[in-house]
Amino acid sequence: MADYVEGKRAVIEALRTDVPLKKILLADNAKREPMIEDILRKARRRDLPVINVPRAELDQKSARGSHQGVMAEARPFPYVGVGDIVAAAQAYAEEHDGRALVVACDHITDAGNLGAIIRSAESVGASGLVIPNKRSARVEASTYKSSAGAVAHLPIAQTANIGNTIDRLKKDGFWACAATEHSENQMWEVNLKGKIILVLGNEHDGVSNLVLEHCDMAGRLPMMGSVESLNVAQAATACMYEWLRQNW
Amino acid sequence: MADYVEGKRAVIEALRTDVPLKKILLADNAKREPMIEDILRKARRRDLPVINVPRAELDQKSARGSHQGVMAEARPFPYVGVGDIVAAAQAYAEEHDGRALVVACDHITDAGNLGAIIRSAESVGASGLVIPNKRSARVEASTYKSSAGAVAHLPIAQTANIGNTIDRLKKDGFWACAATEHSENQMWEVNLKGKIILVLGNEHDGVSNLVLEHCDMAGRLPMMGSVESLNVAQAATACMYEWLRQNW
Repeated sequence: MADYVEGKRAVIEALRTDVPLKKILLADNAKREPMIEDILRKARRRDLPVINVPRAELDQKSARGSHQGVMAEARPFPYVGVGDIVAAAQAYAEEHDGRALVVACDHITDAGNLGAIIRSAESVGASGLVIPNKRSARVEASTYKSSAGAVAHLPIAQTANIGNTIDRLKKDGFWACAATEHSENQMWEVNLKGKIILVLGNEHDGVSNLVLEHCDMAGRLPMMGSVESLNVAQAATACMYEWLRQNW
Repeated sequence: MADYVEGKRAVIEALRTDVPLKKILLADNAKREPMIEDILRKARRRDLPVINVPRAELDQKSARGSHQGVMAEARPFPYVGVGDIVAAAQAYAEEHDGRALVVACDHITDAGNLGAIIRSAESVGASGLVIPNKRSARVEASTYKSSAGAVAHLPIAQTANIGNTIDRLKKDGFWACAATEHSENQMWEVNLKGKIILVLGNEHDGVSNLVLEHCDMAGRLPMMGSVESLNVAQAATACMYEWLRQNW
């Protein structure tokens, strides 16, 4: 299923921020007003084909019905294999006193959260991120914006089974730590030195028991307030910097 | 200047999440369809007056032109004084081994960032937050959503001058630490034990030199990636949990 950016402003933003695009679809009755002209100019500069299509075709492809006569088809995101992430992590560890971080997301469903996690992971020097290939937010054109461009710099793998992937990484010398409020240990009491898989859970249910069974350890961030906890992306940032602190 | 929530979906969301509201403004020609009926029912349950007004009045009050015939006027946020935050912090410190945290925002301009900072501050047990009364994002109806409701539980003060407020808190036994990439110390190398003011800077310029002069110390989060740094709300979360870790 193709991934589309729809609407004049969103298409201009995608062209401006180097989202990898395949082509621009323009309604054959679209008015040549300034924003459309801007899109055509930017597309020409990037050698992107502009295809004239009947407006009904856009209506059909549009997910939100807000295409305003123009859509951009994004290229599929170039996922890597888990092996590539392992190789990147091993190389990183050799250059960084043995530390490496891989982030595993156990069914994060909100695209904005996934983007924010990618941004933090890239900031902290993670070697890659693993997401399930089903029932999970995936990398889309919008992730370029929500990750502030970091998605273009972080290897990301899709996997059929997060638990199996954790086992595989453990064979390569990683320790798996789940971030879960059900742990009795604060995250800073957990030994995060060396090569770590940080396992993050779904927004509602946290890390599933099935995945927890594959983890060597678990830690929580204490919640001292009176309302609901941090969201998963905020918690991820604090946990990742705790990994960096312990390995500094 | 009054703060309005506009549009059917947004008004329903505001009613559902207990945003403090003053009244509902309904266009006198608004159709009584299901969402409007839902708004009227929820308003009745909260004893909120529903005022029928000419649609032109909504057009005039609307900031984004998306009122769809209905707007809700929010109550002004009940800011506290800096003295209230000091008192809350002193009380908190007495019950928590001498630790207390106050967050000072040096001209955060993005409302979403302010909301996320409020959410993290509440999660970590901060006693309050100080923002400037000019050229700064302020607490609005939308902050209830962006802070996941935390704004109702965190004392927030507006001040004419962040530097003077820092000096005042220092007289009450606080140490001020700026989060700035220009520091040579990692945040975890800075002594954050006890009563701390964490000073966060503007999205583009960071903590201003004028405010930095009032700080006792400064720390940074290392950025190990190849793209732009974390946003201020993500960095704030990591810094606040570092304060909690040191004081645990």
